[in-house]
Amino acid sequence: MIAIVFHSGYGHTEVQARAVARGVARTGTPRLVPVHQIEDHWDALAAADGLAFGAPTYMGSASAPFKAFMDASAARVWSAQRWRDKPAAGFTTSAWPSGDKLQTLVQLALFAMQHGMIWIGLDQLPVDGEAAPNRLGAWLGAMGRNRHGEAAPSEGDLASSEHLGARLARVADELRRGRAAGGGA
Amino acid sequence: MIAIVFHSGYGHTEVQARAVARGVARTGTPRLVPVHQIEDHWDALAAADGLAFGAPTYMGSASAPFKAFMDASAARVWSAQRWRDKPAAGFTTSAWPSGDKLQTLVQLALFAMQHGMIWIGLDQLPVDGEAAPNRLGAWLGAMGRNRHGEAAPSEGDLASSEHLGARLARVADELRRGRAAGGGA
Amino acid sequence: MIAIVFHSGYGHTEVQARAVARGVARTGTPRLVPVHQIEDHWDALAAADGLAFGAPTYMGSASAPFKAFMDASAARVWSAQRWRDKPAAGFTTSAWPSGDKLQTLVQLALFAMQHGMIWIGLDQLPVDGEAAPNRLGAWLGAMGRNRHGEAAPSEGDLASSEHLGARLARVADELRRGRAAGGGA
Amino acid sequence: MIAIVFHSGYGHTEVQARAVARGVARTGTPRLVPVHQIEDHWDALAAADGLAFGAPTYMGSASAPFKAFMDASAARVWSAQRWRDKPAAGFTTSAWPSGDKLQTLVQLALFAMQHGMIWIGLDQLPVDGEAAPNRLGAWLGAMGRNRHGEAAPSEGDLASSEHLGARLARVADELRRGRAAGGGA
Repeated sequence: MIAIVFHSGYGHTEVQARAVARGVARTGTPRLVPVHQIEDHWDALAAADGLAFGAPTYMGSASAPFKAFMDASAARVWSAQRWRDKPAAGFTTSAWPSGDKLQTLVQLALFAMQHGMIWIGLDQLPVDGEAAPNRLGAWLGAMGRNRHGEAAPSEGDLASSEHLGARLARVADELRRGRAAGGGA
Repeated sequence: MIAIVFHSGYGHTEVQARAVARGVARTGTPRLVPVHQIEDHWDALAAADGLAFGAPTYMGSASAPFKAFMDASAARVWSAQRWRDKPAAGFTTSAWPSGDKLQTLVQLALFAMQHGMIWIGLDQLPVDGEAAPNRLGAWLGAMGRNRHGEAAPSEGDLASSEHLGARLARVADELRRGRAAGGGA
Repeated sequence: MIAIVFHSGYGHTEVQARAVARGVARTGTPRLVPVHQIEDHWDALAAADGLAFGAPTYMGSASAPFKAFMDASAARVWSAQRWRDKPAAGFTTSAWPSGDKLQTLVQLALFAMQHGMIWIGLDQLPVDGEAAPNRLGAWLGAMGRNRHGEAAPSEGDLASSEHLGARLARVADELRRGRAAGGGA
Repeated sequence: MIAIVFHSGYGHTEVQARAVARGVARTGTPRLVPVHQIEDHWDALAAADGLAFGAPTYMGSASAPFKAFMDASAARVWSAQRWRDKPAAGFTTSAWPSGDKLQTLVQLALFAMQHGMIWIGLDQLPVDGEAAPNRLGAWLGAMGRNRHGEAAPSEGDLASSEHLGARLARVADELRRGRAAGGGA
């Protein structure tokens, strides 16, 4: 099971989270966890094979409700290293093509690193066009751009988010099988 | 007047905020604004000659209560560019010498840039020793390290925070005088 | 005089540097300094009222020839703090809308902070469209996107670069006048 | 085989690279590749089970000789995705405890992400003391602090670098075994 923890202020990041979940579902089992329900899911997160983190970029970094979840993980997870060695990935949306979204992805990756996780980025070569994969040029995670008045990121952005979910589930499988098979350190 | 907006979870960042205020007080007037009182101070912030932002680094970025203030500024300040051209500076504390504090300072600087502000960093060459200036090696802003069980960052960290406050007040004065004097652009 | 130090691998960043220079020229005097000629210009940089730094984003950060200039400044400038208190700004180009350009701007800003400079970002609210100002959504500096096969970033990107140059020159003037006028600290 | 590509200006980062190699050697085969010999090793890098990247932090980011290697990888590796799905890790040294080393690690991680790699950080809880593990508080990679006049980072810093190498080799093994075993996606 791959848990997808997200906050969505206006619905865009939720649409993106559902795309990540579709990618996970190709080979695994996604579980969507909105941050306002996090108190019911700490054990599920600790049991997950991997975690995806998603938040809108507000004023250059992850939204405050998502940050509250990050801060809460300090006592719940950090000192006991409950997420150590799990693969993790990140996604974010904002209103402009660049829009400081990279800073949010760096923030999510550093958060995962503090938990001893393994970071899975977006391995897609960028292609031009609204429906094209990785059209914004992102590699640390998946970005979605929300144009004013539209309910969701572009088709291409969502395809990249789905691809990221599929990759996360695949690597989680590889790590699980590899650990079962090994032998080594 | 220079407003110092801060969140402090355990008191360390408040000690640091007071050091920044002492630096401002050398030539100007500091106003300490804890984020939980922010609703009373939006107009004061808009009237200030400069702003300092301070938050503890939790899980690799600014604490959630400080982020809630950042997010609230989107509607209150951003679209009307109420802080445009004001100088800004940042400070943060955490438990370890590096401790991802740089990421928090980058986050604060990008926040100030989204508001069209001017960023003032720490112009001190580093020196070795607990009481030495800029002993951690920080330039984007002031860092304080809180050792376990101690109530405040080291003497040197606080001296650097005070220096940053003094520099912010000085540049705010220079900009104010320069704008009054000019003619140009 | 505002010096604009830049590296351009394929010409795009040079077009952007010339746009920054046009902005400077509205109220001041620009001097374009390609990094391969830097050895003739260290004294000019130390005498400048402000500096703009520009490099293409290659593999997620500033190009190696620009980094060689940054490294050379350690011995030439850093320990004597020859650039202290000067205003600085940054710009970069790459092939994709986000394209990790933010990381290059953070790199340039941290470089300026190590030199004790003051950072001037882009104070434009973003607008949609190829010819619109700040269409990519950048605030730490100016971004240019180079589409495949085109010789230059879009009209809007270049207008933002020009605006950044004008702002840098204006703030440099304000600081110069404010320092001449003051009195204080 | 795990290749450790590094640049060392004064020997500190080479000492750190050798510590990473000792960690790799616990369960795997390390190959040290100084960047000035990179032209002989592109095929070895493409054949490696994982890559570690190391550079000193100069003026806030990876040294120019290391950046030249990064830039060269664009034509050699990027478009053919020759390093896709390999695990990667990063390490850096500088003169001060924080010293903007985090920015270098972010730069190395974004570089690896552009190549479609998987990022392995440092999963050690920090402990206080010169000989203690992760005493600086770093998670994205391994940091070494070089005190003035000393030939190498502290004992604790080198132990963390060794741990990072061991972890990279272990995860590379897990991925290799997991891919051989699977079945799935």
